[in-house]
Amino acid sequence: MATEQDSAAEGDADTYDEFEQRVERITNVGNAAGILQWDQEVMMPEGGTPARAKQLSTLSSISHELLTDEETGELLEELEGSETTESSRNTSGEAASSDLAEDQQAVVREVRRRYDRSMKVPEELVAEISETTSNAHPTWVEAKEEDDFSIFAPTLEKLVELKREYADHIDPDADPYAVLFADYEPYIDIETAERILERLREELVPLIEAIDESDAELETDAFSGEFDDETQEELARDVLDTLGYDWNRGRLDTAPHPFSSGTQFDARVTTRFDESDLLGSITSTIHEFGHANYTIGLPDEGYGTPLGEARDLTVHESQSRLWENHIGRSQPFWERFLPAVQERFPALEDVTPRDAYEAANQVYDDNLIRVEADELTYHLHIVIRFEVERDLIRGDLAVEDVPEVWNDKYEEYLGVRPDTDAEGCLQDIHWSHGSFGYFPTYSLGSVLAAQLYAAAEADLGDIDEHTREGEFDDLNGWLREQIHVHGKRYTTPDLIERATGEEYTADHFLEYAKNKYGELYDLEEY
Amino acid sequence: MATEQDSAAEGDADTYDEFEQRVERITNVGNAAGILQWDQEVMMPEGGTPARAKQLSTLSSISHELLTDEETGELLEELEGSETTESSRNTSGEAASSDLAEDQQAVVREVRRRYDRSMKVPEELVAEISETTSNAHPTWVEAKEEDDFSIFAPTLEKLVELKREYADHIDPDADPYAVLFADYEPYIDIETAERILERLREELVPLIEAIDESDAELETDAFSGEFDDETQEELARDVLDTLGYDWNRGRLDTAPHPFSSGTQFDARVTTRFDESDLLGSITSTIHEFGHANYTIGLPDEGYGTPLGEARDLTVHESQSRLWENHIGRSQPFWERFLPAVQERFPALEDVTPRDAYEAANQVYDDNLIRVEADELTYHLHIVIRFEVERDLIRGDLAVEDVPEVWNDKYEEYLGVRPDTDAEGCLQDIHWSHGSFGYFPTYSLGSVLAAQLYAAAEADLGDIDEHTREGEFDDLNGWLREQIHVHGKRYTTPDLIERATGEEYTADHFLEYAKNKYGELYDLEEY
Repeated sequence: MATEQDSAAEGDADTYDEFEQRVERITNVGNAAGILQWDQEVMMPEGGTPARAKQLSTLSSISHELLTDEETGELLEELEGSETTESSRNTSGEAASSDLAEDQQAVVREVRRRYDRSMKVPEELVAEISETTSNAHPTWVEAKEEDDFSIFAPTLEKLVELKREYADHIDPDADPYAVLFADYEPYIDIETAERILERLREELVPLIEAIDESDAELETDAFSGEFDDETQEELARDVLDTLGYDWNRGRLDTAPHPFSSGTQFDARVTTRFDESDLLGSITSTIHEFGHANYTIGLPDEGYGTPLGEARDLTVHESQSRLWENHIGRSQPFWERFLPAVQERFPALEDVTPRDAYEAANQVYDDNLIRVEADELTYHLHIVIRFEVERDLIRGDLAVEDVPEVWNDKYEEYLGVRPDTDAEGCLQDIHWSHGSFGYFPTYSLGSVLAAQLYAAAEADLGDIDEHTREGEFDDLNGWLREQIHVHGKRYTTPDLIERATGEEYTADHFLEYAKNKYGELYDLEEY
Repeated sequence: MATEQDSAAEGDADTYDEFEQRVERITNVGNAAGILQWDQEVMMPEGGTPARAKQLSTLSSISHELLTDEETGELLEELEGSETTESSRNTSGEAASSDLAEDQQAVVREVRRRYDRSMKVPEELVAEISETTSNAHPTWVEAKEEDDFSIFAPTLEKLVELKREYADHIDPDADPYAVLFADYEPYIDIETAERILERLREELVPLIEAIDESDAELETDAFSGEFDDETQEELARDVLDTLGYDWNRGRLDTAPHPFSSGTQFDARVTTRFDESDLLGSITSTIHEFGHANYTIGLPDEGYGTPLGEARDLTVHESQSRLWENHIGRSQPFWERFLPAVQERFPALEDVTPRDAYEAANQVYDDNLIRVEADELTYHLHIVIRFEVERDLIRGDLAVEDVPEVWNDKYEEYLGVRPDTDAEGCLQDIHWSHGSFGYFPTYSLGSVLAAQLYAAAEADLGDIDEHTREGEFDDLNGWLREQIHVHGKRYTTPDLIERATGEEYTADHFLEYAKNKYGELYDLEEY
């Protein structure tokens, strides 16, 4: 006979099941939209645009309605319950019913967060932001083409205003930039992010100056020449084979702006080929491999709920950067992979692994463009956009002053001043999407990559040796176990601390950067 | 100042707008599912199956819920109104409000039909059919591989039972096969379909016998040889270019079972390549072009409602067959296109247009397989499955007797008897999908193709001359104007009568078949 307690637990189980089905439904609609977006970028003929826009808009509104439905709120309240013991409070401080398993509490925590944010922002504002960003894209393109910030300025003004309003609905008492940042990185607080970025600026600026003054001559021309697209694609497949990409759950295509997307069952990679930039396509492919490999590593049984979803942008970027930089730009990797390159492109027969390593790590201190930056100056591009957008959103910087402030910062941090807006503050698309707060996660991910790599090395021993053998199973197994299989079970700080045994820190990244570039550029002081 | 009548009309306009938005939403969900299905057939890595099944099931249930929502029913009733004049009753006999424009009445008519059919069938039955067909597919595959009908028989029994039940819910007083047929072809009554198919049988059986007895020796080896896939693909692109495929709204890929799908903004073609069957890939590509070209011709402004959707399977198949047979298997086409083939495959330099024409029209009276059949015997394959499935659904034939009846009919109509079930009643996948009533539309479409081609020729003059010049704009323009732009505005019989000036008839197809094959096989009596 069932006791009273049993029936209560059964009632909870039923409620949770109903809740889970609802969440899975929302997830499936979102994943369907993901396929439509992939198709639009990679496969769709241009004429398909008007219908695709309508299909995506319908899926987005259905998803929003399912999430903000009264019933979602009722189920959440029921599951969070009233009798919460201190020990069952989860890390974000939300109440969770003590009758729920830890995994279930995590699902409730994540859905509650999305639900609250969706409920707080009026639909009209969401629609207005969506319409404004749709129109912003062609305006940004025109401004960049005409090299004239004033064309984009009124749109940027409007977007800043709308996003401030958006932040105000979510939390009128909080720093609006912190609220926007949390859309991309919900669990790392803005103070931590600022501290990390400031430290990067403080320590990388002198390192880059030292490199600039170094007499070391790196083999920068190792990969010069013309490389046809077809063979580059074969080589991209070679590199994915080498790293252990699961082709049964993925595919490789080309896209103008490489990305990866999908689910643990089907996580696809895109890359691009430039006849004069062989190295660029290899590193870009490795980067996207890192993203897709994380997605594939999410647990199958978690599909449909946050337990089967990636832990936001910092962790995602840590995976792509770990593979791109710590593996793909390491000398052991080139010892392993160079023969494959030379087999595809016999003209490179005289290149040595050291040459390849040096070419892959050249620091360009006069480069103005983020996406063409090396591993070090990259972060100063990020720091600059972060400082500018933060001040814009906080109201400490006027839109009209952006180009000058932008250029001043380039001069101060990198020693170069853009001649044009196109090469300056107009270079990146993100603001035209209304994405303020996204940029920092690029650097935060690189910093985390170094911390994870150091922890993996402490557990696994010399990873270089494995890389030289083309053996990535240990490293990948470590990442699976420490990061991938957890989905969104833990908050970002918890996940990091469990994986590495310490708090999130830039120490490892800076140590890695100083050691690596100190050796490459023969810097005495590093 | 608005009069009372004006306000009433405005009210109607508001109601119609609300209704249209609802319909567009359902359409967008369906079209999103269409992209996911295309992706699954053409792009998806195999591992993606479990997640894709869930995504499609979610979209399907959302679509069902939106359609069968109480509000859909209320809007339909409101729009159909109470004050209906005799003249505003539309062809299907449904009431339509006299305040609605003809186009709007057509949308109401089509949605009413779908709504009623969806409402009448209990969700549990839909789910049971869906589950049974999911499991039926591997069973059918196994039965075919093992060449043993008894493996599939219990599943077929169950499917027949479920589909009879389904038909009974929709209309307990009607012939259940007629109800199922109407799922694929709602506006041609089953008596018309039977009459057409019987006439095909009666007149094609003696024609095929005469061909069998003919001494004419056709150039059947014109395209023998090995043809690599890459060059075949280039040639498939050539043929699409020649026919005028709109690449801005389409693309070509390969799939194991060629199909085309999409919307007027994005209608894609798939084909397949067999190294030993060049002709097969060309005709299959032309066939799918016909389907995609119809889809692209649907009106842009109708996107989202039935006005922008194809008029069911008979008309769709008429478009593919018209291009495949009346153009692609004509001698003028080969006069035009053979040089392109020879440029891609120089080994074929000695083939003449007449050789190609004969090879493309060889009649195989000993072939047992529908998908390998020629233009004439094809219809006997259809007639046989039609007769068998009709008798199964009507309860006039027991499942266990299917193989024997099947084989008897092959002997009677085609003079060949299958040795195995695999080459007999197990050859096609459709029954495992629960698709009873689908098959007839293949032949009905071919018959309509001939009727449309004759009408186009009456309007445009000698189409052969245009084909010889590679000029397809006139023919395509005629099809656009007479068929494509109407979407589902008219019922099928109305559409046919408007386009051709006469009722749906097999006369033109039989005349075409007798003339063409009488000449090819030197038949005195034809």
